[in-house]
Amino acid sequence: MTDTPKKVVLAYSGGLDTSVILKWLQTEYGCEVITFTADLGQGEELEPARRKAEAMGIPDKHIFIEDLREEFVADYVFPMMRANALYEGLYLLGTSIARPLISKRQIEIAHKLGADAVSHGATGKGNDQVRFELGYYALDPDIKVIAPWREWDLTSRTKLIEFAEQHQIAVPKDKRGEAPFSTDANLLHTSSEGKVLEDPWEETPDYVYSRTDNPEDAPDTPEYITIDFEHGDGVAINGEPLSPADLLAKLNDLGKTHGIGRLDLVENRFVGMKSRGMYETPGGTIYHIAHRGIEQLTLDRGAAHLKDELAPRYAELIYNGFWFSPEREMLQAAIDHSQRNVTGTVRLKLYKGLAQVVGRKADVAFNLYSEDVVTFEDDAGSYDQRDAEGFIKLNALRLRLLGRRKG
Amino acid sequence: MTDTPKKVVLAYSGGLDTSVILKWLQTEYGCEVITFTADLGQGEELEPARRKAEAMGIPDKHIFIEDLREEFVADYVFPMMRANALYEGLYLLGTSIARPLISKRQIEIAHKLGADAVSHGATGKGNDQVRFELGYYALDPDIKVIAPWREWDLTSRTKLIEFAEQHQIAVPKDKRGEAPFSTDANLLHTSSEGKVLEDPWEETPDYVYSRTDNPEDAPDTPEYITIDFEHGDGVAINGEPLSPADLLAKLNDLGKTHGIGRLDLVENRFVGMKSRGMYETPGGTIYHIAHRGIEQLTLDRGAAHLKDELAPRYAELIYNGFWFSPEREMLQAAIDHSQRNVTGTVRLKLYKGLAQVVGRKADVAFNLYSEDVVTFEDDAGSYDQRDAEGFIKLNALRLRLLGRRKG
Amino acid sequence: MTDTPKKVVLAYSGGLDTSVILKWLQTEYGCEVITFTADLGQGEELEPARRKAEAMGIPDKHIFIEDLREEFVADYVFPMMRANALYEGLYLLGTSIARPLISKRQIEIAHKLGADAVSHGATGKGNDQVRFELGYYALDPDIKVIAPWREWDLTSRTKLIEFAEQHQIAVPKDKRGEAPFSTDANLLHTSSEGKVLEDPWEETPDYVYSRTDNPEDAPDTPEYITIDFEHGDGVAINGEPLSPADLLAKLNDLGKTHGIGRLDLVENRFVGMKSRGMYETPGGTIYHIAHRGIEQLTLDRGAAHLKDELAPRYAELIYNGFWFSPEREMLQAAIDHSQRNVTGTVRLKLYKGLAQVVGRKADVAFNLYSEDVVTFEDDAGSYDQRDAEGFIKLNALRLRLLGRRKG
Amino acid sequence: MTDTPKKVVLAYSGGLDTSVILKWLQTEYGCEVITFTADLGQGEELEPARRKAEAMGIPDKHIFIEDLREEFVADYVFPMMRANALYEGLYLLGTSIARPLISKRQIEIAHKLGADAVSHGATGKGNDQVRFELGYYALDPDIKVIAPWREWDLTSRTKLIEFAEQHQIAVPKDKRGEAPFSTDANLLHTSSEGKVLEDPWEETPDYVYSRTDNPEDAPDTPEYITIDFEHGDGVAINGEPLSPADLLAKLNDLGKTHGIGRLDLVENRFVGMKSRGMYETPGGTIYHIAHRGIEQLTLDRGAAHLKDELAPRYAELIYNGFWFSPEREMLQAAIDHSQRNVTGTVRLKLYKGLAQVVGRKADVAFNLYSEDVVTFEDDAGSYDQRDAEGFIKLNALRLRLLGRRKG
Repeated sequence: MTDTPKKVVLAYSGGLDTSVILKWLQTEYGCEVITFTADLGQGEELEPARRKAEAMGIPDKHIFIEDLREEFVADYVFPMMRANALYEGLYLLGTSIARPLISKRQIEIAHKLGADAVSHGATGKGNDQVRFELGYYALDPDIKVIAPWREWDLTSRTKLIEFAEQHQIAVPKDKRGEAPFSTDANLLHTSSEGKVLEDPWEETPDYVYSRTDNPEDAPDTPEYITIDFEHGDGVAINGEPLSPADLLAKLNDLGKTHGIGRLDLVENRFVGMKSRGMYETPGGTIYHIAHRGIEQLTLDRGAAHLKDELAPRYAELIYNGFWFSPEREMLQAAIDHSQRNVTGTVRLKLYKGLAQVVGRKADVAFNLYSEDVVTFEDDAGSYDQRDAEGFIKLNALRLRLLGRRKG
Repeated sequence: MTDTPKKVVLAYSGGLDTSVILKWLQTEYGCEVITFTADLGQGEELEPARRKAEAMGIPDKHIFIEDLREEFVADYVFPMMRANALYEGLYLLGTSIARPLISKRQIEIAHKLGADAVSHGATGKGNDQVRFELGYYALDPDIKVIAPWREWDLTSRTKLIEFAEQHQIAVPKDKRGEAPFSTDANLLHTSSEGKVLEDPWEETPDYVYSRTDNPEDAPDTPEYITIDFEHGDGVAINGEPLSPADLLAKLNDLGKTHGIGRLDLVENRFVGMKSRGMYETPGGTIYHIAHRGIEQLTLDRGAAHLKDELAPRYAELIYNGFWFSPEREMLQAAIDHSQRNVTGTVRLKLYKGLAQVVGRKADVAFNLYSEDVVTFEDDAGSYDQRDAEGFIKLNALRLRLLGRRKG
Repeated sequence: MTDTPKKVVLAYSGGLDTSVILKWLQTEYGCEVITFTADLGQGEELEPARRKAEAMGIPDKHIFIEDLREEFVADYVFPMMRANALYEGLYLLGTSIARPLISKRQIEIAHKLGADAVSHGATGKGNDQVRFELGYYALDPDIKVIAPWREWDLTSRTKLIEFAEQHQIAVPKDKRGEAPFSTDANLLHTSSEGKVLEDPWEETPDYVYSRTDNPEDAPDTPEYITIDFEHGDGVAINGEPLSPADLLAKLNDLGKTHGIGRLDLVENRFVGMKSRGMYETPGGTIYHIAHRGIEQLTLDRGAAHLKDELAPRYAELIYNGFWFSPEREMLQAAIDHSQRNVTGTVRLKLYKGLAQVVGRKADVAFNLYSEDVVTFEDDAGSYDQRDAEGFIKLNALRLRLLGRRKG
Repeated sequence: MTDTPKKVVLAYSGGLDTSVILKWLQTEYGCEVITFTADLGQGEELEPARRKAEAMGIPDKHIFIEDLREEFVADYVFPMMRANALYEGLYLLGTSIARPLISKRQIEIAHKLGADAVSHGATGKGNDQVRFELGYYALDPDIKVIAPWREWDLTSRTKLIEFAEQHQIAVPKDKRGEAPFSTDANLLHTSSEGKVLEDPWEETPDYVYSRTDNPEDAPDTPEYITIDFEHGDGVAINGEPLSPADLLAKLNDLGKTHGIGRLDLVENRFVGMKSRGMYETPGGTIYHIAHRGIEQLTLDRGAAHLKDELAPRYAELIYNGFWFSPEREMLQAAIDHSQRNVTGTVRLKLYKGLAQVVGRKADVAFNLYSEDVVTFEDDAGSYDQRDAEGFIKLNALRLRLLGRRKG
């Protein structure tokens, strides 16, 4: 970055690290800082972020605090869920899917206020730096990107805290020492990684979990719920219509109570190493399972199998930070096309960490399951068993020709 | 089938239906019947099958009763598990994977005894007819295939029972009426479908389950186990070396106790309709989860992601009956290549329907996870955070060029 | 087919075979026949079909003769070309892509006139029967389908001609004996197969070709042309705006002259056997090559590579007759999304069977190629060569960890 | 790179650029240099490289000049050709496939002589740096890599030549000015790019081509040849057995004469930008076409279609430099499995830029094409046309259920 940035939009949480970054940007570059703090459902007060920014001299007009929960769920989580996306077979991408929205809003604010740079607090070894920055560059190819963790010399916690104290940034008691692990949270999930979690042979201590009760402490009685879907998206729980964010929040409550959605994972980062993470995705796990349940009834086999083949790639794109890429959009176009008739109701049983589909139904305009066709009994002509012979014979023909060759 | 079969190898369970088929083959075609009864771990006595065959005049040399459990697990279940194969995202293919082995043995016996035909008891609406027959044709392109359920006029249970009584075939009391559902079982799973299960909105009644205890009745205390893997296959439980079949049987016991592996699924059959099935795969579910666990530590990202992309196709091939096809073998070659270093130990927690990986370790010769590289701290040069900037910049370049065009 | 059809819409070419079918439908089923004859650019007079239908007693209101050339190219050929679809790496799907449109119009006419059945003249060993009938069933699941070649006893040419003569159907002299090969033609291509072409070791005799001059007889001087594309579709040749069908027809003329688009192929049919065909796709070959040329300049790498991976599947779906399937539509949605900015001009050299892109350009609003970025010289900051090191290092990280393990 | 390299294995062509690098390594790092010069069929004398190295003080034991042509074709080109790999649908990967072998030999020599570093002459904007270095790191994770073009300050041709003159490195007359384009050559191809080729709208001037005659100047009479394949690899031309390198060389002669294998391409580099290249792959183009030809006869549809779907990914891996990666090896295992019976003879016609398969045959032990099955005539029971109805009906079932829903 040859030129000094003049006006920087910082993704600002209000926590110690991004407060240090804010100050460092001011002192290192002498630039104006615009703080952007988003409520993505992480469950923290945002007003303290305002006060801290003000304390560091940021004028009101440069402090942006926004509730993006509905946009987050409607435009990012739900589209992703339509794909049944799982990274490496298991991970519901809770952190990955939040980054594009933050990038997008930072760039929008930068354009509005004439800022020439953006900055984030992601470290130099993780995936988030990639996700933020690919988003920035895709949305503004000429933006300057400042990644303090890759640039500064505050390479240890001690140095960071010294810097904070030197600049009158309050250091909470529990931040003085090394945190036993680090977390990221939003309406979809909480992730935890680092330190005490780094030995993949050690079971995660129970105190790491914040979003889910221990299944062993969950109620001894199962709870049954229904989720209604329309065109691939959830719209109601137990018959009560809910906005996207409210629906996910409600599922989070249910999932927390029943200990659903804990995942202990060793995953492959885009930057090349393996890392061990602990994910809690209570509502998202239920939603994911339910979505597959309604697709079972309403999605054609050809569409379903194509989706299953595309999903790993789609998940990889989101994980790697390519939300704003032509290929993710292409896959989304295909996936969205498949969801037109994914409308109906799923019934789930929640019990001690398990969320199981136990029933699904759909209006005749959406249902592809036919008891008439499947029944063992005479089905009045919908299906002629003799057709099966021809079906098998022609499917077998190439194998028979192969077999003859071998003979 | 223009020519009358002269000698038929029948996949014979000893049950009412295949006993009727045996007799029907004798009376309809006047042909010799060779019975083949395999122990694939379905948990039934096989000697009664011998007595029934003898009672219908089958000479001893034409009665084949074989314990194929080890071959089944070592050569079919384990290779499939190496792929992490799930049909439609959820189903562990317990029925599908048993068919090729039965087909193969029938053809081998046919060749040994000079039989010109094979026969099975699968119905005309299901997938199993396809799986059996594709196997037959692939292994002997000139074999005659007799599928009585598609040919005869015993199209109702009443007619079937009449035929049985007319021919002195014992009809067990519980077979007189319509069964409330039908099942298939082997060492990997039990499936149930039909009748009471056909309404996909209705929860499966508890009496349908035979292989797993209800999670609600499972022990209140979690149980921890370890599974050792070598080159992609399980070799020991809790440190005790076990043969493939014994290992799966042991996991079945554990899974049953803890209520693990129940699946309520509406699936898409190869023959074109949707059906609802209930699957219990206690040991297979634990094994599948554990296998992913050890891959997390020992499999490279490139290999892992390629496997994830190939797995839906691989699963579809097995489900559709194409085990003995060049494309399944090609995929197997790729998958097997990836498993060379999948060696290590997984620790799992079993509790009320849940099987969760809580730890995994591998010898340094197999482990790809490096705390040194992943740690937030200074890592002595294994990873230079400044490299991330270049990595991001070049990954972003095409997106920036795109963005500029839009500008 | 239990019920007798009452009113049948027949895909009627006016040739001997479909004339026999027309009569056979009348005599065999005593049903009303509606003839549907489409001009898809096969280059034959259609009015004789009208006269022949009238001669067999079809009333005017039941004779449908339609010019579908523009719809064929705009809604079928061009969308397929957007995908760069090649079946088995080589075949431009000229026959496959014409079938869905015929099916669709037959069903539309059936609905309009209250017909309960449709019929076609495709034989029982080919792909076309599958393509027609999958189209019929997808568009009207309850339609009756009559496939005379699979039903009747006119199993030899002699019997067919006897039937024709018996029913006063004129038999052209050249149809009396066995044709040396059979052909199918439309605006996109002419295919030839059968008889003299069945030995895949024998070179196709020159008299088989009807749509292309022999390259050896083509002009000794190359011809240069340009094709303009907008949003993925061709719109002009040498700067002259042309409708889709006119554009393809013009390219056919050019391709014929220069001997472009001959293909000798042994292909795998959906019905299970290999067959040898000879295809001539003069204009389509040029168009296909040109489309790749303009994509090179205007399509992002991520989109381009995803398209390349999806294309074989897409081609297979069209070849197998699944045009009207959710999965083809999903792929189309993805492909079409990618074509939004595929706008520009391609320059080609045509010479003795070769069509080569020798230049391509695009407006700055569409062009992704940047001489500034690619030049070896200093490029004023668009690309920092030092970024490459980080890019390589992080891409190599997993391979290094693998290498260390092996060490 | 914190530590100074002590002993460097340089990929040394003997040309001006790598001679400057040699000297620069000596002067910049004061390190020992080992030169490695490979004959990959680029068609240049290698002994001058020895003399130049000697002139710069490299002792004989540190000069490695090796003829790797047979290894190159047998272990790299042929395995790649088995996949029918084309990058971006068109490019036969002639440069990409040569890099892994050079990397491998450099690392082997480094290990043998105790060198701690390797170096190459690829620039900082291209793909080759990535290919070389991914190879190095995969084969020795701890090797030091020196990429002078990314490190030094010889950033213009003037500076480079000044450095050369200052160090008594002979500067050929034609290297004094800027070259009008740069080339890379090996037995598979010659590529040209840069300068006069950078405007993608301009036709490549004829003087750029060195490996192929202009089709317009090629013989007016076609030439017919045969290529024999065994297990997927070429073994003979016109019946004469040839080693891999000799076979490719012979095809190069034929291709040159007939003007075959010119490609004008705008491609997407791994490092993120588009570039325009001109490729000449005379023999490789013929070989590629012939290989598809023999597969048509001997490869099963399932295997063929799976290969077609995997090929773009495989090609991308090679292009991007991931030859030594688990996922390339997995794909290779799948591809190689498919080639076991790809044995037979292809007949091709070569004429003015065109290479066309006009015939193919295979022994009955390998041939899957059956005239008996495909013929329109009665085929004595190999295929029952009535089977087609069942085949179509069951393939249509899901589409009919879809259609009913829409109704």
